[in-house]
Amino acid sequence: MAADPLSTTFAALADPTRRAILARLSSGEASVGELAEPFDISLPAVTKHLKVLQRAGLISQGREAQWRPCRLEARPMRDAVAWMESYRHHWEQRFDRLNEYLKSIHTPEPARKGVRRGRRKK
Amino acid sequence: MAADPLSTTFAALADPTRRAILARLSSGEASVGELAEPFDISLPAVTKHLKVLQRAGLISQGREAQWRPCRLEARPMRDAVAWMESYRHHWEQRFDRLNEYLKSIHTPEPARKGVRRGRRKK
Repeated sequence: MAADPLSTTFAALADPTRRAILARLSSGEASVGELAEPFDISLPAVTKHLKVLQRAGLISQGREAQWRPCRLEARPMRDAVAWMESYRHHWEQRFDRLNEYLKSIHTPEPARKGVRRGRRKK
Repeated sequence: MAADPLSTTFAALADPTRRAILARLSSGEASVGELAEPFDISLPAVTKHLKVLQRAGLISQGREAQWRPCRLEARPMRDAVAWMESYRHHWEQRFDRLNEYLKSIHTPEPARKGVRRGRRKK
């Protein structure tokens, strides 16, 4: 597996358990046992997920003798967000145009007959 | 493959050719042939990538008889960015704290002994 760093990051994010682990670690470091707790899966399964996250550089594990806490590493996530954001304004534009179009086909023409003003939908 | 939408999106993004296709489409729709042009891979290989992107809802393909233009679909990308951003301030904080720590161990203590200032290691 000689994937580029960005591909490795996205591949690591492509799993709900791994994303939940990252979410947990975003509020502070935790041991493997603590990370496994909320999930209904075996410790080896969690360890496997942690290895994928570690290979992607998304987490690191301390070397303290007894509990080896896992912690989040910000850089790969920042790079992934940076890639997405570099095209963001194009996506937003497309989305805005779509919204405008949908509005235009669903909104009646400007009131031109002096109709009584009632409650309006937002 | 009954992956959740977010996992499907991230998996689709985990490939440099697919990301390049999305980057191209962010500047306007294009035919399969146009999309294949810059890549040194076969048309069937490009078609395969397009299918992955289509399954993830990241692109759609028009039904115009002759050229069936591909276009970007914003929603999955927005959802992926939204997920990443929901934890962003934690990552930024971690990153900032790391930066501060690195600065603190490399910056000399406030000059209090009036020592001559020489060249310091960074």
